[in-house]
Amino acid sequence: MLDWNPELYSRYEDERTRPARELLARVPLAEAAQVVDLGCGPGNSTELLVQRFDGATVLGTDNSEPMLVKARERLPQARFELSDIGSWEPEMRPDLIYANAALQWVPDHEHLIPRLFAALAPGGVLAIQMPDNRQEPTHRLMREVGGEAPWAQAIGNPEKMRTPLLSIEGYYDLLADKAAMVDVWRTAYQHPMESAAAIVEWVRGTGLKPFVDPLPGELQSSFLAEYERRVALSYPKRSDGRLLLAFPRMFIVAQRAA
Amino acid sequence: MLDWNPELYSRYEDERTRPARELLARVPLAEAAQVVDLGCGPGNSTELLVQRFDGATVLGTDNSEPMLVKARERLPQARFELSDIGSWEPEMRPDLIYANAALQWVPDHEHLIPRLFAALAPGGVLAIQMPDNRQEPTHRLMREVGGEAPWAQAIGNPEKMRTPLLSIEGYYDLLADKAAMVDVWRTAYQHPMESAAAIVEWVRGTGLKPFVDPLPGELQSSFLAEYERRVALSYPKRSDGRLLLAFPRMFIVAQRAA
Repeated sequence: MLDWNPELYSRYEDERTRPARELLARVPLAEAAQVVDLGCGPGNSTELLVQRFDGATVLGTDNSEPMLVKARERLPQARFELSDIGSWEPEMRPDLIYANAALQWVPDHEHLIPRLFAALAPGGVLAIQMPDNRQEPTHRLMREVGGEAPWAQAIGNPEKMRTPLLSIEGYYDLLADKAAMVDVWRTAYQHPMESAAAIVEWVRGTGLKPFVDPLPGELQSSFLAEYERRVALSYPKRSDGRLLLAFPRMFIVAQRAA
Repeated sequence: MLDWNPELYSRYEDERTRPARELLARVPLAEAAQVVDLGCGPGNSTELLVQRFDGATVLGTDNSEPMLVKARERLPQARFELSDIGSWEPEMRPDLIYANAALQWVPDHEHLIPRLFAALAPGGVLAIQMPDNRQEPTHRLMREVGGEAPWAQAIGNPEKMRTPLLSIEGYYDLLADKAAMVDVWRTAYQHPMESAAAIVEWVRGTGLKPFVDPLPGELQSSFLAEYERRVALSYPKRSDGRLLLAFPRMFIVAQRAA
């Protein structure tokens, strides 16, 4: 299991919360009694759910205890539990199962996603957002540098930690024959970044972890230096001197018949 | 000039208004005195602006009188004027210039967009959304069928009506060195459609017009039949029997320094 660093993860909280908000904006529920935030992290997405569904029972789950500590501090009114999404089962049928930037770490979407959908209350909504950036330079370059000496041996196969995504039509197909409504879309955000170092810091909090964490100290430094060098070559300076970090994300919202 | 049909255009108004809402949601203004909706069509986007900026003076412009008639019926509290975006100049510096699904019909973005930005009041915002679907099967197939006999001769070069878009980084570059903030992104919506005929009906209201309008009656029918046949082949049925119409759109929001 990755050792998540809530401070590092939260440094780009505004940018990371935007897709969480946009996902929630498409949830067609006027009210909800039981709401679950799967993979809640430090609670930024859970806070959106608490604000939107006044009076709902809100549960956040995560498999990182440091993240849950932050979430409990932030939202004493919600309940938080340590659990793995892959084996999680709700106690009561939720009106909303919300998973923002979480399911990309959980395998077997073909079974996982229909199982989560089937756990909903009638009229309930499953709402999912996942980064879709494996083909972006940031993530191509992680694999490229991580596959070279002297880093490759300690890293092993970091890609096995992250689940290959289906096509967006594939997610539609998983749910459309069971759902009253399915809405899928993909947004490529473009985040202006001050430097290649800032891009490395961004991914250091999430996608880069399985590459860097297994390395001994001095190999971490050399890996990060070489990775940053190649990032700088792949992101040209724009007219204001900044770099544009393209960050595509996939969104899925599906509602059960009432 | 195209003869726009407000009823046909409005048939997919929910789907067409969604990007207008999402664009407006990213406009970082608490209030605005002067608001302009360039290419307002039947007024669905103008209505969003009127709702958001209570007390603002709202002007809608369009180059189609039938569209303006509808817009005036819908929003007697706003002002609407017939004009071309390419030569439009504001009487007073606007706090918001909003152009939803309009600038793709206006040439020379390299000059047009900086010129609109320069017309803003200090702290003002330029907000643009444009379809980016020229490489989608719907639009590839228009060009393909429209380039064949017996239709090609009457159609001429319909692509000259629509402006080729810059890359999203290109739009960032046009504004980033002049702006306090630039936010660009691209969203590919996936609209579930009942049939190939429904997809043809959708594009019939906009992108297909420059292909169909110049044709004499019987060639219109044969063109539409052949086009629909090829659309059906390019959009496979999903698990619920529907077709997914991918519809990518580009968004640009830029704010002047206060």
